[in-house]
Amino acid sequence: MAIVLGDNRYGKAETRLLRVTRHGDRHEIRELTVSTTLEGDFAAAHLRGDNGAVLPTDSQKNAVYAIAAEAPPGAIEDLGLRLARHFLAASPAVRTAAVRLDEHAWTRIDGHPHAFARPAGGEVRQARVVADAAGASVAAGLDGLLILKSTGSEFRGFERDRYTTLEEADDRILATAVTARWSYAGLGVDWAAAHVTARAALLRAFADLHSRSLQQTLYAMGRAVLEAVPEAAEVDLRLPNRHHFAVDVARFGHGGEVYHVADRPYGLIEATVRREGAPDGPPLDW
Amino acid sequence: MAIVLGDNRYGKAETRLLRVTRHGDRHEIRELTVSTTLEGDFAAAHLRGDNGAVLPTDSQKNAVYAIAAEAPPGAIEDLGLRLARHFLAASPAVRTAAVRLDEHAWTRIDGHPHAFARPAGGEVRQARVVADAAGASVAAGLDGLLILKSTGSEFRGFERDRYTTLEEADDRILATAVTARWSYAGLGVDWAAAHVTARAALLRAFADLHSRSLQQTLYAMGRAVLEAVPEAAEVDLRLPNRHHFAVDVARFGHGGEVYHVADRPYGLIEATVRREGAPDGPPLDW
Amino acid sequence: MAIVLGDNRYGKAETRLLRVTRHGDRHEIRELTVSTTLEGDFAAAHLRGDNGAVLPTDSQKNAVYAIAAEAPPGAIEDLGLRLARHFLAASPAVRTAAVRLDEHAWTRIDGHPHAFARPAGGEVRQARVVADAAGASVAAGLDGLLILKSTGSEFRGFERDRYTTLEEADDRILATAVTARWSYAGLGVDWAAAHVTARAALLRAFADLHSRSLQQTLYAMGRAVLEAVPEAAEVDLRLPNRHHFAVDVARFGHGGEVYHVADRPYGLIEATVRREGAPDGPPLDW
Amino acid sequence: MAIVLGDNRYGKAETRLLRVTRHGDRHEIRELTVSTTLEGDFAAAHLRGDNGAVLPTDSQKNAVYAIAAEAPPGAIEDLGLRLARHFLAASPAVRTAAVRLDEHAWTRIDGHPHAFARPAGGEVRQARVVADAAGASVAAGLDGLLILKSTGSEFRGFERDRYTTLEEADDRILATAVTARWSYAGLGVDWAAAHVTARAALLRAFADLHSRSLQQTLYAMGRAVLEAVPEAAEVDLRLPNRHHFAVDVARFGHGGEVYHVADRPYGLIEATVRREGAPDGPPLDW
Repeated sequence: MAIVLGDNRYGKAETRLLRVTRHGDRHEIRELTVSTTLEGDFAAAHLRGDNGAVLPTDSQKNAVYAIAAEAPPGAIEDLGLRLARHFLAASPAVRTAAVRLDEHAWTRIDGHPHAFARPAGGEVRQARVVADAAGASVAAGLDGLLILKSTGSEFRGFERDRYTTLEEADDRILATAVTARWSYAGLGVDWAAAHVTARAALLRAFADLHSRSLQQTLYAMGRAVLEAVPEAAEVDLRLPNRHHFAVDVARFGHGGEVYHVADRPYGLIEATVRREGAPDGPPLDW
Repeated sequence: MAIVLGDNRYGKAETRLLRVTRHGDRHEIRELTVSTTLEGDFAAAHLRGDNGAVLPTDSQKNAVYAIAAEAPPGAIEDLGLRLARHFLAASPAVRTAAVRLDEHAWTRIDGHPHAFARPAGGEVRQARVVADAAGASVAAGLDGLLILKSTGSEFRGFERDRYTTLEEADDRILATAVTARWSYAGLGVDWAAAHVTARAALLRAFADLHSRSLQQTLYAMGRAVLEAVPEAAEVDLRLPNRHHFAVDVARFGHGGEVYHVADRPYGLIEATVRREGAPDGPPLDW
Repeated sequence: MAIVLGDNRYGKAETRLLRVTRHGDRHEIRELTVSTTLEGDFAAAHLRGDNGAVLPTDSQKNAVYAIAAEAPPGAIEDLGLRLARHFLAASPAVRTAAVRLDEHAWTRIDGHPHAFARPAGGEVRQARVVADAAGASVAAGLDGLLILKSTGSEFRGFERDRYTTLEEADDRILATAVTARWSYAGLGVDWAAAHVTARAALLRAFADLHSRSLQQTLYAMGRAVLEAVPEAAEVDLRLPNRHHFAVDVARFGHGGEVYHVADRPYGLIEATVRREGAPDGPPLDW
Repeated sequence: MAIVLGDNRYGKAETRLLRVTRHGDRHEIRELTVSTTLEGDFAAAHLRGDNGAVLPTDSQKNAVYAIAAEAPPGAIEDLGLRLARHFLAASPAVRTAAVRLDEHAWTRIDGHPHAFARPAGGEVRQARVVADAAGASVAAGLDGLLILKSTGSEFRGFERDRYTTLEEADDRILATAVTARWSYAGLGVDWAAAHVTARAALLRAFADLHSRSLQQTLYAMGRAVLEAVPEAAEVDLRLPNRHHFAVDVARFGHGGEVYHVADRPYGLIEATVRREGAPDGPPLDW
């Protein structure tokens, strides 16, 4: 059988930038990491080293800087739309342009006009925009949000096999680092407000549900986003189970309650929650 | 529209183990990181917190340890097949079981019977096995293989737009960290020999091709694997372009040639190379 | 010349624990990473493999768990004092016991009694306690506090040599990740209040000073801690200069202001600020 | 008490470079990460923002590139000497210049003239040179060398306290990641040969000693370096004890031997081994 080229794509990954907007002495800043990916007719480059259709990734980087500089800073979803549409139009060979944006938050130091501190080192706000001839689609999300419940979580009644040694737990620590992504059914959304609403819904559902399993908590969190954000069509959640093992300090004659926080291995629970009958949106496994 | 559960899966990630086999004073050791993922009918856990169909991830971890201990150590592909088939049979709710295995190499210190050193801290050998009612499929690969050419690479004749400032390069550094995965058309392969052959083909193609673009090099590397390993059906390559920028030392009156090694951003080139008409294999984007 | 054993120490690094205190439905949680180090007469273990004086690091781990469980949670400085004194008394061979504690903050989700989120993934509060026959000393600090000024920073009038190509900057981005440690002249301090005061002084000094160099900013930050916290004797600051390079978007016909955020290399400025004539405290370079 | 400036230093951290030397078609390449640190009279910059004595870290970076480009590539110790002497002379304010160099190895692909692969992603060769008015001193070392013994290691007869639950081990896995640094009594050493000899001595001592504790193994490794390399005056070793816990697979009816590889916590053993009466060399805790 002949050997042929299959799916392919290329782009510039992790262009990190700081956007500053000055209103006199008072500045606004935005820190972003942007990755671009182009798909289309690039067979000649692969098969013959003919780069005539290849817009350099260096040019993609320059465009990210320039287009981020040009416009007043809006939501990352809006910037993603501008970038994706730019790349779709940049070259006749491009059939699909995808842009991923991670935003790293800054807050003012005591209301200072131009001094800032990072409020949350771990959590990033995310968006991904895909544009092709049929139009553009937007997904959003967050990554690295650490949450923990010190009670209100059990795990019982599970299946057992010959390798099962786990004891049932009536009251355990439940902790995870949330990766959540959701697709929007259309454009014209107030992206910033929707993100705040979705994030609050995730936290509230996690806190309020008496959890019988991380699967149940995941589903409740996904459902809460869809109920709170009508424009969201589908939610994908990826929840590592950060195990906390109770240490038996009673054998040392001690009271109190302490847990070992384990690194690896960890459980990993993933699922999608969606509106029944909603059309397929962009994939959420980026 | 009603809210419903979509695709879902769960498992135990990153169980790290060391397998020791003693032949008298002479030992064999194998270090693996194993992740398991189960898909099937787990709706009750998500919707109602009913865990009756949920085999704990703790049990999956125990099974990984036990099954790795039991058998004589073979290729990770063989161990993956045993594990995937075990999990498929472990519970009636399971419809698909996937097992990912990363092997971290050790070599003997001066031929010593039981003292070892790590030869390659960055590179791991990989396999992924998926089993369902229709049978099992095997993919293999490697990650973190750093390679570099100090000449024999150019990048010219590319498309230009208003953001293009890159100059054409007649002779540049080409460096990447290879992530390569390939699927096998069937079972019954000498997995270890095929891995050695594929790895050598990747290196040889990288070294020998005068590169006109990283895309061309990628395709040549993928093609080389298919030509060298007849059992391989499809190859997926993910090649970050680790940019090296020449430093202008002449302005300081110095001769010599030195490059700045950049971290971010970097180009990212991805493509699949496959045999025409071959049936679809398992996805290679793990 | 004979070969002899020099300075030596051992301990258990990075014991991670979660301490839960229940007041009915309302819980308090504390997450700590604790490392212990013992120095003393351990020559026999090194020279002859005689472990009679060696308290296992596993026992040190157990003691960390148990002592953290026993007492009501106080400041990490207080827990450090209890641990250091315990290890000093644990074995006649121990002459100095040092304990390092990193605290990872959690805050309540909407005032929830037992659901929490991580407010700052990057920043950790730190303490280090050293105990020996002469008594105990306490140092405290923080690590990973990201701060940035978008104006109010210049760098001019610097020395030039044949390799100098840097242009003078009237108005540049100043950004760093603060590592700050300070020693206390004695015990009996309100550790938590002192930490809040020191942290606020660092931020305020960074924000308010018109910076002529990162050295000047560093000194002002250290001085501010000593002025605000009378119990602090010496401050050590380690400030990487996270370079932000302005991107020339005007050449693309764009307005706006955008910077490339570089990873490496970076400047690194380190200094100690202390009260003149203060006695030497514990080293601050941990 | 007045507030004053204490010890201080500054420099450029982690300048990464690739040095290429062409002999016709056959190239030599060297990849280095270089950090420079200057100490001296920089009080004016800290106290008054007067930068007249401050050679920018950007100039230090340029000098690293230029001096690495200029000379034929020698041992990193030789390059370190050239750099440290350059910085000592670069400015009258500098009293001590320190240069740290990490070398990342490359080897040829099948003897290819200009295609290379990374043989050991984790291990780096290291050197640190310090120059002041009295002359220069050189230390060398390695970091990230993973080694493991699957037998020939025990841990018994240790001290016990109320928190001791560890059982004595007749036969355990011993694994560590070696950080080793040694100082040279003078210059004029064949640095490359000495490094090869020291590394081999470390491995051989680890493999050959029947270990009664990691302390004993550490001392034997340090002693072996001093015996093998007469120019070395002092050796500092930092050995994390990478714990491997035997998994009880017999309870599942399985034979075989498998261990859980733990991440944290880990034991940490540190000591210096030196020639009695040797003069103090440069500190080895970088």
